[in-house]
Amino acid sequence: MLSIWLVLVSCIDFLLYSSAEEGLEFPSFDGKDRVLNVNERNYKKALKKYDMMCLLYHEPLPSDKELQQQFRMGEMGFLEQFSGLIRTDIFIFTESCDLCPLGLEEEGSIYVFKDERVIEFDGELSADTLVEFLLDLLEDPVELISNPMEQHAFERMDEDIRLIGYFKGEDSEHYKAFQVTAEKFQPYVKFFATFDKGVAKQLTLKINEIDFYEPFMDEPVTVPGKPNTEEEIVDFVNQHRRPTLRKLRAEDMFETWEDDMDGIHIVAFAEEEDPDGYEFLEILKEVARDNTKNPDLSIVWIDPDEFPLLTTYWEKTFKVDLFRPQIGVVNVTDADSVWLNMPNDEALPSAEELEDWIEDVLSGKVNTEDDDDDDDDNDIDDDSSDEDHYGDDDDD
Amino acid sequence: MLSIWLVLVSCIDFLLYSSAEEGLEFPSFDGKDRVLNVNERNYKKALKKYDMMCLLYHEPLPSDKELQQQFRMGEMGFLEQFSGLIRTDIFIFTESCDLCPLGLEEEGSIYVFKDERVIEFDGELSADTLVEFLLDLLEDPVELISNPMEQHAFERMDEDIRLIGYFKGEDSEHYKAFQVTAEKFQPYVKFFATFDKGVAKQLTLKINEIDFYEPFMDEPVTVPGKPNTEEEIVDFVNQHRRPTLRKLRAEDMFETWEDDMDGIHIVAFAEEEDPDGYEFLEILKEVARDNTKNPDLSIVWIDPDEFPLLTTYWEKTFKVDLFRPQIGVVNVTDADSVWLNMPNDEALPSAEELEDWIEDVLSGKVNTEDDDDDDDDNDIDDDSSDEDHYGDDDDD
Repeated sequence: MLSIWLVLVSCIDFLLYSSAEEGLEFPSFDGKDRVLNVNERNYKKALKKYDMMCLLYHEPLPSDKELQQQFRMGEMGFLEQFSGLIRTDIFIFTESCDLCPLGLEEEGSIYVFKDERVIEFDGELSADTLVEFLLDLLEDPVELISNPMEQHAFERMDEDIRLIGYFKGEDSEHYKAFQVTAEKFQPYVKFFATFDKGVAKQLTLKINEIDFYEPFMDEPVTVPGKPNTEEEIVDFVNQHRRPTLRKLRAEDMFETWEDDMDGIHIVAFAEEEDPDGYEFLEILKEVARDNTKNPDLSIVWIDPDEFPLLTTYWEKTFKVDLFRPQIGVVNVTDADSVWLNMPNDEALPSAEELEDWIEDVLSGKVNTEDDDDDDDDNDIDDDSSDEDHYGDDDDD
Repeated sequence: MLSIWLVLVSCIDFLLYSSAEEGLEFPSFDGKDRVLNVNERNYKKALKKYDMMCLLYHEPLPSDKELQQQFRMGEMGFLEQFSGLIRTDIFIFTESCDLCPLGLEEEGSIYVFKDERVIEFDGELSADTLVEFLLDLLEDPVELISNPMEQHAFERMDEDIRLIGYFKGEDSEHYKAFQVTAEKFQPYVKFFATFDKGVAKQLTLKINEIDFYEPFMDEPVTVPGKPNTEEEIVDFVNQHRRPTLRKLRAEDMFETWEDDMDGIHIVAFAEEEDPDGYEFLEILKEVARDNTKNPDLSIVWIDPDEFPLLTTYWEKTFKVDLFRPQIGVVNVTDADSVWLNMPNDEALPSAEELEDWIEDVLSGKVNTEDDDDDDDDNDIDDDSSDEDHYGDDDDD
């Protein structure tokens, strides 16, 4: 039970795919065994030695040799394989409670140790996603916005929770408090700052003022009581962290999913790169903006394009066609769900119709339990709508 | 040499990650052996039986058992593992020339058989990318644009090569020719159509007219001689297919890389989600728009965010810092490269300076060979610039 595994990334050594041309070689696993059995002592030593580390907290290894092997091929193998591909130096695997003082308690989770921080990675267990996460952690915690073009870039990032502050300069003590706070939320919440009067004016920021942008909202909210201490900013972000509409991201998808509202999620599927999906998303954003003050409402938007490996699973589990936009209620305990009836692509609901349906969800009129005894697929029509379907087929 | 391997995806059976909540289960390999040794006969049978198939054309398997095992763990294992995760039905692996009549000649490439077509997949060998590619092939080859919101979605897709035609309706013979052409280029070139007078007017399309949009260009080019036959559209697309500025996409990254200009690529690295990267990209687009008539110019834009597994490899190979925007010339034979000197984030080149540098590249004044004898890192400054660096540090 108390055995701890340490995977050392000693040197980076690649097996390359053969190609006539150079410049795009994907590194692949070099076959080296990087798993070491460690104890509490070499764990502490490792913590001192490396700038950044990853730890996988997992269930005790089975005694069965074959099952052990399967585990090595599974999650651990995955970490082992990509561990050579990044700048970070080390992985530790633990199964025991020895590290509980660090507050690491979720089995299967990966924890990253960087400087004095422990950051939980609760995202897709894929090399792409984890490596991108680690690279994001190596970036500056605060990005500077120095001119109108960069300001435009900032304004485009409406999928993310963003904070931006206007400070005198790098030496400002208020900027430093902002920076320290940014590190605490990196890479999940984006922090920006400007020292430029013109940019600040455009963003209607006064000196030492910090604005908080909820995803998909046009107007920011100002953190009250400027200049702000680190504690004030942390409290404000934590209070405002669950947005009315949030996009499911590979990097924290499990964390988002666990943050359900009384056991359910309102889930919208829409491909942004698809004309219908884009149209539906615009309607959804309108609804979110109209209802941003409602603390009971939080919609998870999933772009199926970004989760190709889950698309077929979702279609089977939820019994919906994800080549079209969909919105429904999912019970996270059993993945039972009901979906708004949209007969075809031309029958997207209006913002008002969508709001009515969401009201019915929040009041419990539309729910995942009522239909459990029968085979009726049209729950929504029967329960909550006066019409046969939303939208209009005839507008040609 | 003549043994052919067939992997059958008999049934979809998942090993799920354990989780307290339902709804986000990533399917993982169920351990079933789906590789079969096939001959030309069952290959033909399979072709008839399945709607969509994948074929990996690979080098002859080594006779060494251990190397064979390595191959099974490598590319083939990769296909085997994700083959249960999609709607498509079958994979074939071949090493021989039996299928040469189909024109499949590139080792390591994956070919998809769908209806009467053979589509080469020359992208990143990752489950995400291949599954997304296959799902894209299952979409309608032509997307309809029916209202101003969908038109806006169409206009936003400026990274893709897109065609849009205005036709009377689904029964129009010209629309049908357009549809058949679309299938030929799916999923690499996007085809759209509208039957709506208002949308056509906004896009300045006359009836049966087809417009071709090069990536990142504001104005489309009209395919001449409307109404157009399938052959005319195919010819036009093939002639205009290499854009002045193109984004490297995981789905066809190797194809793009092989389409070099006399052995070199002008490569720009810029993170679109980063304020500096965005700013640099806007300058780059301006240069591309100004030079779109130059057939000798084709710049490959790489967003490092989309290739986390290659970032460290590129930084080592090209000796550049990819946390900042970069532009350079890469020799695809040996991956030798020279990079424009941009001393810091605040010193991005202007469009004019970038154009001067590109001119020097095209004339051969800036090249990857001149510096091979010395250790000088500042090739560009020495060879082609009158200034110490581009941009201005002092504009604060």
